[in-house]
Parts: sequence; structure tokens; C-alpha cells
Amino acid sequence: MPDDSTSPRPAGGAGIPTSSLDPAVAARLKRDGAGLVCAVVQEAATDRVLMVGWMDDEALARTLTSGRVTFWSRSRGEYWRKGDTSGHVQHVRSVELDCDGDALLVRVDQVGAACHTGEHSCFDAGGALAVTRGGGDA
Amino acid sequence: MPDDSTSPRPAGGAGIPTSSLDPAVAARLKRDGAGLVCAVVQEAATDRVLMVGWMDDEALARTLTSGRVTFWSRSRGEYWRKGDTSGHVQHVRSVELDCDGDALLVRVDQVGAACHTGEHSCFDAGGALAVTRGGGDA
Repeated sequence: MPDDSTSPRPAGGAGIPTSSLDPAVAARLKRDGAGLVCAVVQEAATDRVLMVGWMDDEALARTLTSGRVTFWSRSRGEYWRKGDTSGHVQHVRSVELDCDGDALLVRVDQVGAACHTGEHSCFDAGGALAVTRGGGDA
Repeated sequence: MPDDSTSPRPAGGAGIPTSSLDPAVAARLKRDGAGLVCAVVQEAATDRVLMVGWMDDEALARTLTSGRVTFWSRSRGEYWRKGDTSGHVQHVRSVELDCDGDALLVRVDQVGAACHTGEHSCFDAGGALAVTRGGGDA
């Protein structure tokens, strides 16, 4: 998924990194062992789920305050703001937190393709798995 | 999110657990350190994102072959088949894997509320975070 990068992670100890996130929001997050929560990106115009990324406190703060979706790249160990190199920007429409604080739903206006493969959604790129017994049978 | 439980995890070493998952599908998964991939559940009828759960190989195998969404509960350390105790069953319509194999999109027919709080979506329960600069400004 990652196609863009920006800046290194701010200095901070293990657990909760230094960030500009509203402390009231930070208190609601249930982070994994790497200090991250899952962010589901959904296109506002079509309701298509485009991709899943990861955010630490600072990435969420930037997403909430800059108008642009920002992730933490687990593979590269740096922030990346979607579209900085590809032009395929995600403009933030809304951000919702789930009931137990470990997942975010980010609704966006997507410019161009969300996936680095050129497909509109990362789930178009991976494609459907065979479902051998559908819902109507269960 | 979890409101239902079923059975213990099959015996297996670290990494890839013993499962009945098609080896061709298993080979495409990029699991986290706990052997899990993220599963985004979307309601087919409304396109609303209902929740995020976690699946290991066996949970995905059961989801693909039983017609019912099955997760691995990180907090309880067991499988849970959505709806077994609540009645709020998720019937599987389709399952897509993303471009890099670490996220699944599961489209379902949702019976009743998806969230253990009684809200239809877990993101209704958590609610919107304040976006101080929207997409149109960026």
C-alpha cells in the first residue's frame, strides 16, 4: 500500500510516542504492541473500502488537523502522507473511532487510485477469495 | 467488539498455525507477529463499515467455508463466531484480500446489531472525532 513517505517518527519512549494528538482522544485509543491502531479508509463518494493503514498518535493528529490522511508505515518505519509522491491524495471527510478504541474509520475524497498497483482499491488488487459456502446457506 | 466465543486455537508452533485453509490462500497472507490479519466487515446492503476483527488462518478458513464470519479474539485467546450467543449473525457474502495480503474485506448480511454495545456499527458506538481541517481545505 505505501507509496509516499514524509518524516521520521518523533522521539519518544516505548508505548505512547510524543505527539500533538488531543489528550482526550489519545486516552481513548487502545494501541497494539507497536503503538498503532488500524485505520480503514473508505471512499465517501462510493462507500468502497479502499485500503487499510496504520496510525500512531501523531499520524492520527496530522490526519485530524491537516485535511490529508497520514499513516505510519510499519515496513519503512516512517510517516507517509498519502499522495505526496503519487498525487493520489486522500482528503479527509470524517474520522470515527470504534467502540473499543483500536480501529479508525476514515472517510475520504480519493484522488486517483488508492492502491500503489494502480487499482482503485487495494482490495481490487488482491481480489476475491473463493467462498465455498455463502451466507444464504448458513 | 467480541460478544461470542467458540473454541480454542488449534495446536501449532509460532508463525503459521495448523489450519484447514487452502494452502494457495495461506501463501498469500502477510500475518503480523501474532499470526493474524485484519478483517474489515462491511454490510452488503448499506456499505456501512460495521467493525474490524482479526483472523488467523483457521478463522479465515472457517469464514470461507461455513458461511459465517469467524474471528480470532486477541483479548480472550479463542475463536468466536459472530452471533453465536447474541444472535447477531454475520452471513458471508464475499471475502477480498488486499494487495499486500495483510487485510481482508468481508462483505456480509448483518442480522441485528454488529456491535456488542447494541449500536449497528462499532463506529457508531465510538463516534466521530473532531476534524479541525477538512478535506476541502487541504
